[in-house]
This record gives sequence, C-alpha cells and structure tokens, in this order.
Amino acid sequence: MPIATPLTELLGIRHPILSAPMDTIAGSRLTRAVSEAGGFGILGGGYGDRTRLETEARELKGFAPFGIGFITWSLAKQPELLEIALEARPQAVMLSFGDVAPFAPRIKASGARLICQVQTEDMGKQALDAGAEILIAQGTEAGGHGASRTTVDIVPAIVDLAAGRVPVVAAGGIADGRGLAAMMMLGASGVLVGTRFYASVEANGAEEAKLRIRDAGSNDTVRGIVPDWSRKLFWPAPFTARTLVNSHIRSWTGREVELLQRADEIARDYAAAKMAGDFEIAAVFAGEAVGLIHDIPPAADIVERIAIEAEQLLGGRRNSAGATQVLSSSPSRAG
Amino acid sequence: MPIATPLTELLGIRHPILSAPMDTIAGSRLTRAVSEAGGFGILGGGYGDRTRLETEARELKGFAPFGIGFITWSLAKQPELLEIALEARPQAVMLSFGDVAPFAPRIKASGARLICQVQTEDMGKQALDAGAEILIAQGTEAGGHGASRTTVDIVPAIVDLAAGRVPVVAAGGIADGRGLAAMMMLGASGVLVGTRFYASVEANGAEEAKLRIRDAGSNDTVRGIVPDWSRKLFWPAPFTARTLVNSHIRSWTGREVELLQRADEIARDYAAAKMAGDFEIAAVFAGEAVGLIHDIPPAADIVERIAIEAEQLLGGRRNSAGATQVLSSSPSRAG
Ligand SMILES: Cc1cc2nc3c(=O)[nH]c(=O)nc-3n(C[C@H](O)[C@H](O)[C@H](O)COP(=O)(O)O)c2cc1C
Ligand SMILES: Cc1cc2nc3c(=O)[nH]c(=O)nc-3n(C[C@H](O)[C@H](O)[C@H](O)COP(=O)(O)O)c2cc1C
Repeated sequence: MPIATPLTELLGIRHPILSAPMDTIAGSRLTRAVSEAGGFGILGGGYGDRTRLETEARELKGFAPFGIGFITWSLAKQPELLEIALEARPQAVMLSFGDVAPFAPRIKASGARLICQVQTEDMGKQALDAGAEILIAQGTEAGGHGASRTTVDIVPAIVDLAAGRVPVVAAGGIADGRGLAAMMMLGASGVLVGTRFYASVEANGAEEAKLRIRDAGSNDTVRGIVPDWSRKLFWPAPFTARTLVNSHIRSWTGREVELLQRADEIARDYAAAKMAGDFEIAAVFAGEAVGLIHDIPPAADIVERIAIEAEQLLGGRRNSAGATQVLSSSPSRAG
Repeated sequence: MPIATPLTELLGIRHPILSAPMDTIAGSRLTRAVSEAGGFGILGGGYGDRTRLETEARELKGFAPFGIGFITWSLAKQPELLEIALEARPQAVMLSFGDVAPFAPRIKASGARLICQVQTEDMGKQALDAGAEILIAQGTEAGGHGASRTTVDIVPAIVDLAAGRVPVVAAGGIADGRGLAAMMMLGASGVLVGTRFYASVEANGAEEAKLRIRDAGSNDTVRGIVPDWSRKLFWPAPFTARTLVNSHIRSWTGREVELLQRADEIARDYAAAKMAGDFEIAAVFAGEAVGLIHDIPPAADIVERIAIEAEQLLGGRRNSAGATQVLSSSPSRAG
C-alpha cells in the first residue's frame, strides 16, 4: 500500500517521489511521465531560454499535477519567465540557489505551492521566512549544482529546523527504495530524484549521456567548477556542480586560473563538443547515485520500483485509510 | 522490543550499536560502558603505545563482549601488539586503514571475529577475500580518519558487494535513532558510532574537547591533512582526518608545503598545545554528527536513546522470537 506522508497529502500524489527540474533534461515528457506514475514531475525552467520554456510549459497546461523549477539567481535576471510558468498553472513552483523572497508572494498568490531547495540551515531559515511550503534538503551527493554538506547530515538538520511546520524532502544520492525508506527514517516526507530520472526513456538527454550514467560507478563523479567555467557560467558561492569525470575535467582541475584566462577559446570548444555529443569534453551532470543505476527504463518504472521497494522496507504500520504512515514525518509530532 | 539483525546475532548483543575504537579516546571505561548497555564496545588500540594497550586490555580481560580496534598500517609496524590484544580475549578485532591479509589468519584462529572498516568497494573486496566476518562501510561524514565517499553512497554499495555473506555496519554521521533506522533501510545490520560517544562521560577525552563537540554545528568540521602533518604523522592515501575547525587549521590550510618545511617547529608547538589543552591549535577529532550532539551523557544513555528511537521508527514487524526483524539486513535474502 502507498506511503502516505504530509508531502503526498499536500501535493495530492500517490508516491512521495518528486523528479528534479533538471534544466533542459527534465522536459514536459519526463514531467508528465513521473506524475502519471503517481509521483510529482517538475519541469526544468532552464537558464532563461524563453522560447523553450513557453513551448514546454504549454505542453503541460491543463495537465495535473506538476511543478516548474527555476534556478533562482538566473530567474532574477529574467523575472518575466515566472509569469510564463504560472500561466501553465503548475501545482508548485520550485526555487533553488538564491534568494526566494522576491518571488515568493507572486508564486503563492497564484495558488502554486512554493518549494525551496536548500543546502544549509541558514538557507532553510531564509526560505521558511519567505513562506516556503515545502523544503528540499539537498546533499552534496546530488547531480548538478549543490554545495558541500552530505545528505545524512543536512536532511535531519533541516527536519529539525522545519520542526513539523512544513514537509521536508531529501535530495542527493537517492535512486532506489532503500534511499527513500532511509530518508523517511531521517524524518523526510519524500525524496527529490534527479540522476536516476536522467537515465530514463523520457529524459531529454543524449543517448550517449544516458549510457555513461548507466555505466558509471559512484567513484566516477566529481564536484567542481570546471564545467561551469568552461561555459563562462559563473555560479555564486557556495555552489559547484557534480558531473561525471571526463578528460576535460581531469585536464583542467587545478588549472582553473589558466582556464579563465583562455575562457573564450575554451567556451567555444566546449560548446562545439556539446553539440557534437563529445562527453569527454562536455560534462554529463550526474550525482553519486550513478553507482545504483544500471539501466534506462521508462520513468514510470523508476517511480514504481522506488515506491514498491520502500513500501516493503517500511513494512506494516497502517493508518485508518489503509496507507503506510511513517510517524516521524508527521507534522503533528512537532510543536 | 530490541532490533534483531545478523550483527546482533553474530556478536550476541542486544542492540546493533558498536562504539568506535577511537585511539586513546575509547579506553576500557567507554568500551565496558557501551557493552554493559547492550551495545558492543571497541577499545582503541591506538598508535602503538604498548604500555597503554597492555593496561587497557588487562582491564577488559574476563569481561565480555568487547572488541579491540587497530589502525592496520600502524599495527603493521608493531605486529606484536596484536598478541597483547588477543591475550585479553576480545570477541572481535577490528582493523581499519590498510591491508588486513597479514593479520586475518591469526585473529580468526584466536576465535575473535574479524571486523574490517572499509571506504571503497575495492577495500571491501580485499577484506572479504582476507576473511572479514563483518564489514563496516565508513562514509566521509565520520570523525577521525576516513576517505571521500559519503555514507548514503558507500553503505548500499558495500551492502550490495557483501550480498548477504557478512553483515554490513554503517559508520559516519550517525548519532541518533533516526540514523540507525535509516542505515537499516539502506541494508546495514547496525551502526558504528564514534563522535557521539566521544561526548560521553566515559570517553577519555579532555573535558574542553567534549564541550567543543557539544557546542559545534555540522558546518564546523573539516576533512584534511593539516592535523596529521602538524604531528609529523603521514597517513597513506586516500586517508585524511575530519576534525573540528580551529585557528591552526584555518591558518595552515592551503599552506601545507610551508607546514612541511617547518614541520619540526610546528610539531613541537602542536604537542605543547595538546598537552596544555589548547584546542585552537591541537585538533579535536570529530565528525559531521556534531550537529546532532547537544550534551555529554553517560554512554549507556546514548546506547539506549539510539536504540529506543530506532525501535520506534522501525515500528511493528516482529519475528517469532518477538524481536524487530528488518528484512533487508537478513543474509538469507541474498544468494
Ligand atoms: C542533469 C541535472 C541537472 C540539474 N539541473 C537543476 C536545475 O536546473 N535546477 C535545480 O534546482 N536543480 C537541478 N539539479 C539538481 C536537482 O534539483 C537535485 O537536487 C538532484 O538531482 C538530486 O540528486 P540526485 O541527482 O542524486 O538525484 C540538476 C540535477 C541533474 C542531475
Ligand atoms: C576521535 C576519533 C578517533 C578515531 N580514531 C580511530 C582509530 O584509531 N581507528 C579507527 O579505526 N577509527 C577511528 N575513528 C573512526 C571511527 O572508527 C568511525 O569510523 C567514526 O567515528 C564513525 O563516524 P562518527 O564519528 O560520525 O560516528 C576515530 C573517530 C574519532 C571521532
């Protein structure tokens, strides 16, 4: 029987599994597939490509439930993109990496839930103060951008901070039901999963990138700044990106100053490699969970496998509605 | 009711909680207190101080159950210390950080269980080949020495590697029942806990060090080489040490070459600071779990709190003996 948590209740979903707004990788197709399987799909808002966002958001208009996620500091440069997103009537808007206060009132006024992904207690406090209705505690294991604290460390820390006022979702390194069940024991009400969904049929990634994720082991990812600087993309501290290691990263790590000095040339080569699908130069954004990923199934299979394995692990406890109720994640427990 | 796992069965203990062999911090007093509370105390074998080991081991002779832990590469320099340990008739010998093959036959011939702490799959394979009977999967969150993979990543990886042949214990960042319950969901049969027991009445640490652990947050630890090099202690790769950050570490991080050049002088000052209890120079070895630690109770209270909280979280499932049985950690499950 499904796992009922404050998160599934708030979002009206069957399984406490959210798919991450992985920039262009998480398009409307993946978003829809995850939600149709009983999870909650979140469209990647990307880095400001207005036309893409309009197209993808339009695809989802009328569909439910789904969310749209933005990189907050990037959205701050093009705040009008928020209106395009809201026009599609998402049930939630997710903001990561930056100050959410300027956007929170508009999002909440639209009726969408405000989900904030945070990496430290300070960011968690700021998000709660701004009115976040769901907090995502992201550990350094995560694919893509993030910071340094680990999932086992940051999840209980944010759970304690939230103190039952809002559901906390765990992100970073989760790819199977063991991970979901473990995070629920830490007090989370669900998980946000990125890398595992990248290696799915419906993700927008290149086939070669998906194969590399499938074949990599946990030792094959690294967190750093080389992939960003190679695109002349300068993220604010403390954020760095976790990707698969490749020749380009091996060659430039430790030579970041030289990389900056030759930034124009390198960015040209990097863009060309990306176009050509050369992933020894262009980076595949992926997290430590690659060690748990050995296939490229439909997203619905991923949702079901995670849910069923976690249900089995969490075992018996039923509430009156017949759903598995995990005590630790019930807001009624805290003051 | 207590949590029954392959680990509690193998060691004949009530709770699946091991205390870490924290060099001189984990003396016979802490070891005994943990075992008397139903856990499994492991005496720190230290860095080769023969007299100390003799004294501490003698204290435990006749007591049961307990273990003695060695830093493997250090033991290799003074292999005779193993005989001193075995004379005390420990139920287990734990080896960490180095090749266990030279010591495994002697340990197993004595009747003691061989516990090996590992940080990668390769180390796990080596330990299994050498005859390890319990594997500890240690994440980078851990206090003291360790490597880079996180607990959420390395625990399921070692569980999959062990494939039910031996119990796997999770280490790194565990300080409460949420952590124990989470690790059991990942497939572990128990936890090895260090930092939490450092901040206990019975640990041998300086009171000031315990207070610093109590008052620190997760952001206040760092993994690096400065504390080791400042003692002219050169660990083999890939091992580094996690400690609380202090003035000395802040000042020398990034200047390690200069530190080496001035090693004699710095080691003198460091030793003096340690004697004087100046923890802005001498390092307090502690892990990310400091964020979960807010008091300095008797070790028995720690064992009980962790056990009771985990039992509540793991909830209902009983086996015929009336104990909570967690399916995922049963060796009978795998081939
Ligand atoms: C390819 C990729 C792209 C990502 N892009 C974004 C993004 O644009 N915005 C965002 O908030 N998070 C992004 N993330 C991070 C996710 O929100 C999430 O924290 C992460 O995927 C969780 O860890 P996991 O990858 O181990 O499942 C991305 C992750 C990946 C793998
Ligand atoms: C103060 C301290 C000293 C340690 N010394 C040793 C040691 O001598 N041998 C060893 O195998 N592990 C040692 N460790 C690491 C532990 O075995 C264990 O992996 C770690 O404490 C688990 O993580 P935690 O500190 O978050 O509980 C030490 C840990 C601490 C905190």
